[in-house]
Amino acid sequence: MSVFTPVSEHELARWLSNYSVGAVQEFTPIAAGIENTNYFVTTAQGRYVLTLFERLPAEELPFYLGLMSHLARHGIPCPAPIADLADSFLSTLNGKPAALVTRLPGASLERPGVDACAELGELLARMHLAGRSYGGYIENPRGPRWWRMAAQAVRPFLDAGQQALLDAELHFQSLHRFPDLPRGPVHADLFRDNALFEGGRIRGVIDFYFAGVDCLLFDCAVCVNDWCLADASADLRLDADRTLAFLRAYGAARALNALERGAWPVMLRAAALRFWLSRLYDFHLPRPGMLVHAHDPGHFRDILALRAAGDAPWSG
Amino acid sequence: MSVFTPVSEHELARWLSNYSVGAVQEFTPIAAGIENTNYFVTTAQGRYVLTLFERLPAEELPFYLGLMSHLARHGIPCPAPIADLADSFLSTLNGKPAALVTRLPGASLERPGVDACAELGELLARMHLAGRSYGGYIENPRGPRWWRMAAQAVRPFLDAGQQALLDAELHFQSLHRFPDLPRGPVHADLFRDNALFEGGRIRGVIDFYFAGVDCLLFDCAVCVNDWCLADASADLRLDADRTLAFLRAYGAARALNALERGAWPVMLRAAALRFWLSRLYDFHLPRPGMLVHAHDPGHFRDILALRAAGDAPWSG
Repeated sequence: MSVFTPVSEHELARWLSNYSVGAVQEFTPIAAGIENTNYFVTTAQGRYVLTLFERLPAEELPFYLGLMSHLARHGIPCPAPIADLADSFLSTLNGKPAALVTRLPGASLERPGVDACAELGELLARMHLAGRSYGGYIENPRGPRWWRMAAQAVRPFLDAGQQALLDAELHFQSLHRFPDLPRGPVHADLFRDNALFEGGRIRGVIDFYFAGVDCLLFDCAVCVNDWCLADASADLRLDADRTLAFLRAYGAARALNALERGAWPVMLRAAALRFWLSRLYDFHLPRPGMLVHAHDPGHFRDILALRAAGDAPWSG
Repeated sequence: MSVFTPVSEHELARWLSNYSVGAVQEFTPIAAGIENTNYFVTTAQGRYVLTLFERLPAEELPFYLGLMSHLARHGIPCPAPIADLADSFLSTLNGKPAALVTRLPGASLERPGVDACAELGELLARMHLAGRSYGGYIENPRGPRWWRMAAQAVRPFLDAGQQALLDAELHFQSLHRFPDLPRGPVHADLFRDNALFEGGRIRGVIDFYFAGVDCLLFDCAVCVNDWCLADASADLRLDADRTLAFLRAYGAARALNALERGAWPVMLRAAALRFWLSRLYDFHLPRPGMLVHAHDPGHFRDILALRAAGDAPWSG
């Protein structure tokens, strides 16, 4: 990636002297990640991730760090921000807003099975319950308002068939808003690579930097559209066993109400639309310094077309 | 112990449904501990300690839980209280104030060596630095005011020689108060059994329920009087190597100032006096339901007599 702020060992040591985590022992840049500069940092005290924020506006960062801290103190396995000696989660390193968070164990699963999907469902429900007492508020930055803006920007790059799909879906979604669905902070990007498993359990949910307040059900739809595909590279229909395992485990921890069960097919389409649009946007209108190889937008176009055609009406 | 509030598995499950930690998997009473009812609790999410508070007044508990939470989010390895769905660390279980905190790995060392004493010194200094931004305030409940009260209560049980030692020490201490020493939250009870080691590192500092705001140096003196004895069962003089290892490691993370270096011999006596008095008090005036076998008060009487005779003038 080209958006990258280098940090020397000396600069890190000086910065860390404002924290209570002891001296640096190891310090490695993380190649993955397309939005921020990340380093693994090991100190006398433990293992951490140092993030220098390259994209998000500084005034929004307290929402994300506060949310992670809130969830962590509710027992949710997410990165816990470490406060500095001034008792702040956020400071500045080499001119960028920077934060230190705990590094979690585990590795993501490429092909999660029924048990892993159930584990995710239960954890997501517990995360939603814990998040509802969080006081911070940022509306989901990739919600309906953003869809309309993004659609306008990417429409000229689409062929007629895709324009029709996009127009029809935006129209359909505009007829189905759900102001009465339970809302709260949602992760909104809990793809397989953002859940770290160890011993069959999720030991870490990471990358909260697309979080915001939205329908809780939207988070479920984002997960299912990534975790429960029949075959992520060939058959984008939902696998019934894994989808039901997810929904049942979720519902056992937080029961879906009648409105949510009714909204489920619409929400699956909304979640597909959101990622189709963001991938179109990043593909056709990349920001300077972004990864050269953006994700293929076609994946979510196909998912949207399938869901719009009536795939998977399960309602938890 | 006889002060003990039984909790059934059903009661625990119902109580835990107000938390985000998943269902109970294991649940074991902890025999150790003379003050509170404690259970180990393992859930789908992790390992915790459930504490029902038997001694401390409910209005003081937020200070202790808040302090642990503050230190934990600064990276200090101490039990992190888990918030319930109402976002509170404290609730009620079977009529007692109760809290759930993370269970930390490791085991205490009976005979800590030079390296372990240095590890303790560094961690205590980091804990003190992190604690200084904590907003809560309870004065050390076993400070000079309490000494005078306790001395009056236990004096009738002492022989003439012990009365003379006690009177002389109270008089000596009254001449040496240090209002200008750096102050902040101190653990005040960081004996060997309250530090859990794993792989040579302290992975847990536990039992904060004697904490309060006092001179930071007092905490150092409490530690040294327990960790750095030549032989805890035979020779209560300070071992120079371990004492210096502790003080050097502490000073490298938080330098002791000139006032603190000057106050060190007095503080070692103050720390010995505090525990002599509390052991005398528990021995002669046990509260109903306390452990039958109170600690031997003579141990700290002998430590006090040695320190008063000029043992260990090292000043960091």
